[in-house]
Amino acid sequence: MYIALDAMGGDLAPHVNVKGAILFSKETGHGVYLVGKQDILEKLLEEYGGENLPIQIVHAEETVGMDEPPSIVIRKKKNSSMYIAAKLVREGKAQAFVSAGNTGAAMAVSKFIVGAAPGIERPGIAVAFPTKKGKPTVLIDVGANVDCRPRHLVYFAVMGHTYVKEILKTSDNPKIGILSIGEEEGKGNELVKDTYPLLKMSKLNFVGNAEGRDIFTGDFDVIVCDGFVGNVVLKTSESLGMIILDMIKQEVQKSFISKIGALLMLPALKRFKKKADFAEYGGAPLLGTKGSCIITHGRADERAIKNALKVATEFVETHFNEKLSENIEKLLPAELKG
Amino acid sequence: MYIALDAMGGDLAPHVNVKGAILFSKETGHGVYLVGKQDILEKLLEEYGGENLPIQIVHAEETVGMDEPPSIVIRKKKNSSMYIAAKLVREGKAQAFVSAGNTGAAMAVSKFIVGAAPGIERPGIAVAFPTKKGKPTVLIDVGANVDCRPRHLVYFAVMGHTYVKEILKTSDNPKIGILSIGEEEGKGNELVKDTYPLLKMSKLNFVGNAEGRDIFTGDFDVIVCDGFVGNVVLKTSESLGMIILDMIKQEVQKSFISKIGALLMLPALKRFKKKADFAEYGGAPLLGTKGSCIITHGRADERAIKNALKVATEFVETHFNEKLSENIEKLLPAELKG
Repeated sequence: MYIALDAMGGDLAPHVNVKGAILFSKETGHGVYLVGKQDILEKLLEEYGGENLPIQIVHAEETVGMDEPPSIVIRKKKNSSMYIAAKLVREGKAQAFVSAGNTGAAMAVSKFIVGAAPGIERPGIAVAFPTKKGKPTVLIDVGANVDCRPRHLVYFAVMGHTYVKEILKTSDNPKIGILSIGEEEGKGNELVKDTYPLLKMSKLNFVGNAEGRDIFTGDFDVIVCDGFVGNVVLKTSESLGMIILDMIKQEVQKSFISKIGALLMLPALKRFKKKADFAEYGGAPLLGTKGSCIITHGRADERAIKNALKVATEFVETHFNEKLSENIEKLLPAELKG
Repeated sequence: MYIALDAMGGDLAPHVNVKGAILFSKETGHGVYLVGKQDILEKLLEEYGGENLPIQIVHAEETVGMDEPPSIVIRKKKNSSMYIAAKLVREGKAQAFVSAGNTGAAMAVSKFIVGAAPGIERPGIAVAFPTKKGKPTVLIDVGANVDCRPRHLVYFAVMGHTYVKEILKTSDNPKIGILSIGEEEGKGNELVKDTYPLLKMSKLNFVGNAEGRDIFTGDFDVIVCDGFVGNVVLKTSESLGMIILDMIKQEVQKSFISKIGALLMLPALKRFKKKADFAEYGGAPLLGTKGSCIITHGRADERAIKNALKVATEFVETHFNEKLSENIEKLLPAELKG
């Protein structure tokens, strides 16, 4: 198996990307296509001791900047590491695509260059949120599809179901919710009200409306929403987590005794940070694409890159797309298929 | 001035409501209509020493349960403390309405019983989020209007502008953003894309798109969004804040040294909690209603009730609705008026 890694994407690229690929290859024996500047990557690969591993460099002249609009990348950056890595999957040379680069561009490249899996209209990006109960809650879609129709949300539900069951393995019959603003049926905007009866009609384990607070309780395995709402929730949560730690730090700085206290609490705070760190889960998969596509944080370190590569492998090994097709067949009523 | 207080609404009602009204009346000299069960309220008022204050009891036979659907309350709970308190404002007997009860019902009662201010189609509920910079960012609407048109968001912007300038007094020319999923113009869903040019056309200090993370940076004074997205963000943030503190507590429990550390940090953690506590800001106003309507947390204590009553007073004293009308006149282009 070969995974195509955008070696130039991410805040710490290409160093952590090369290191992550080496760690991954040593641990699993699987191959990696390192896509990026040949000379730089060759030097780093040698420096970090990656010569005798199944790691191949594929040259790409350009890189994608963190602020470049996705539409420009798709049309004009055909020689970029991100684009070429995705193309390796489309051409069947690699089985999966991993990038820590510009998230919007990586999503667009996954959708349009790798392409949607058969029977899927709209791939959706899934993020596993840490919860009070320990097991994650998957929110899908968090940004791949801004304006959605009810049909798309139902497909996200099947993708989330398959992800929880086959990859995260935290439930055999995942509890599915739809993100809304009130628990009772009939609460929500037009999209929610129109999607609700379709989810109820399916053979999914649909529990009903979930509220914002339910993302972190662990009461749901999967919560579906359109990509606009999901992206706002993701970015709000990430930043709030960091700001709360900052605010606590600020308060702690105000007294000497508090500083000692914080020092003694350090191991506990570090364990907490690890728990709340989305990188632990190995990045966010774009579900419903032909090969598996994993998009990880711009600030990913070598461990996060390794994890993302491993998650990509699991998608291939579990035959995720076949399972997804089977589940669509099994769980959805005829009028929603095809 | 008299404020109508739903004395039976809230988790700790009617005790904290009566106590809060007494604190408020002692501090400001203003009057309160305590609406609820006559006999209970009379007893409490005497017990807590509120006899010689301008506090009048208005009897209401029923109360509104925390889970009752707003539509039922509007149609069938005309003898409830919430409904009668709102009616006192509609009839001009009170100048403002305050409730810590069922939020959805309190919003509905404010919208339909108190009613919208002249020239306002859709009142919007505003919440002041604590930020890194200390001064709050106001998010509007957080739940009063589920499906919105661009015109409504523009009016929310003027309401937010007026709230920041006249009540919070944290900026003379508030920076306005629209909640979206990317900074550049053209990013977002249909509603955002259609609202953007209207905000640009206005004389508001419109800065552009805000992302989820911008809610807590303090870079914006007001961020507008539809009530569905705003409500999801509000509930996500509230619960994440509490869950982070819980997770830290859990980690701390695992070691004796950490516990000592936490003990030393306690004053700092308490200061942080106060900073992050929305009740400090005196509840959320529903902007654009005839009288001023303040909806505060179900778990409001006597201090929060007092603050909410004080905020209600400020709305009346600053002639908020007149300022709002002036700002609509001054800041919006002719095609958006009336």
